[in-house]
Amino acid sequence: MTQTVSASLVVIGDEILSGRTQDTNTSYLAKWLNECGIQLSETRTVPDIEAEIVAAVNALRARYDYVFTTGGIGPTHDDITAESISAAFGVPCQRHPEAYARLLAYYGEKDFTEARQRMTRVPEGGVLIDNSVSIAPGFQIENVFVMAGVPKVMQAMLETIRPRLKAGRKVWSETLIVYAPESRIAPGLEAVLDGIDDISIGSYPFYSEKSVGAQIVIRSHDKAAIARAMTALKGFCVACNYKTEVQASA
Amino acid sequence: MTQTVSASLVVIGDEILSGRTQDTNTSYLAKWLNECGIQLSETRTVPDIEAEIVAAVNALRARYDYVFTTGGIGPTHDDITAESISAAFGVPCQRHPEAYARLLAYYGEKDFTEARQRMTRVPEGGVLIDNSVSIAPGFQIENVFVMAGVPKVMQAMLETIRPRLKAGRKVWSETLIVYAPESRIAPGLEAVLDGIDDISIGSYPFYSEKSVGAQIVIRSHDKAAIARAMTALKGFCVACNYKTEVQASA
Repeated sequence: MTQTVSASLVVIGDEILSGRTQDTNTSYLAKWLNECGIQLSETRTVPDIEAEIVAAVNALRARYDYVFTTGGIGPTHDDITAESISAAFGVPCQRHPEAYARLLAYYGEKDFTEARQRMTRVPEGGVLIDNSVSIAPGFQIENVFVMAGVPKVMQAMLETIRPRLKAGRKVWSETLIVYAPESRIAPGLEAVLDGIDDISIGSYPFYSEKSVGAQIVIRSHDKAAIARAMTALKGFCVACNYKTEVQASA
Repeated sequence: MTQTVSASLVVIGDEILSGRTQDTNTSYLAKWLNECGIQLSETRTVPDIEAEIVAAVNALRARYDYVFTTGGIGPTHDDITAESISAAFGVPCQRHPEAYARLLAYYGEKDFTEARQRMTRVPEGGVLIDNSVSIAPGFQIENVFVMAGVPKVMQAMLETIRPRLKAGRKVWSETLIVYAPESRIAPGLEAVLDGIDDISIGSYPFYSEKSVGAQIVIRSHDKAAIARAMTALKGFCVACNYKTEVQASA
């Protein structure tokens, strides 16, 4: 049986913590990892401060199979991820010859400024993560994958990373929308949970002027277990006369 | 001089880590706190697992002035925040008399099911956080504020919490959009940073088919320092012939 593979994410960026930028990388990464059979188990958002980045990365890389980071690999003074990851691993942060050659060819000698050269810094032992959108690469060191914060670039880097990851057991899910207050649905959920192994159930209430209800999400590595849970849950709703609707999978 | 007040956020929820739900509470809270002069300094997203919630809350409440949590205070089996916060503080999780009386009056004796009674559990010593949207309260214990995950309910709870928070120094910001590659703007940013104290500068590149550039965000407690930085930065852009645009404040 394939084992569960776990991952964590460190979002590096003052712009998220100030509320200026709405993070969307987390949900993209979560869904993408799930397709790979990898479970996102924790995320942290830290400011552009080396000690904070080091502490988060070191806590998470010891604990999860993979750590992903987003942000802070550009050319400006607030892009300190390469130095911070080097510090986390206790290795020098140095010019990566291949990245340097590639950016030099792209910009030309005259325009290859000091700022642009910053984008070629990689911790010793790091392996580049190319992408189809931007000339500047991310990098991998051991189980830590350092990516850009710009969503399109991050998404392109993930495609490069994919073959480097071990595949785990994919988690499947189905969602039943139940048009009844969550507190009425709860006993049915308890019964389903007690009766069927290997599933997890989440309940997410919604309120609108038109309707009140909850989205019940059943998740499992085992599609048959999900089907059994859905049947039991629908039976409970029919018995209670609650209107339901199966939500199409994403 | 008013000192800086710091805060952190623990997002509790499998639905965020599975990618099913796009978190928007973080950016709302970040902006709201900034209006109060409080700085959001770290966020963590953890699954619906007691040990994970306990570890995150205990790490953050020792470190920041305030900890906010979202999610897990509803009536279903996966709503384990009240027990988890109690465990974090080493106190019993008990029925709160006022919350109990209020929900009993709302539902009536017959419909006040066990599931609904779950919503009246509060750690010993906890103080309720009412809200105008939902009958079910959140609670505060010491410097930890436990809120609902549903955005409208969380937002209403924040208004209840506001008078309980000490006000810090508000951070102001201005944004200059510069239509030039970020790596060309970097030297100007360095010069501004070197010359003006008490500011922080963030640079956020954008790429589209029509234009390439970066949004330069200057942040400070001191409006005059921001004005000096903007003048210096605009001067640099004029000298380099980069088109710029001042972004309207949010």
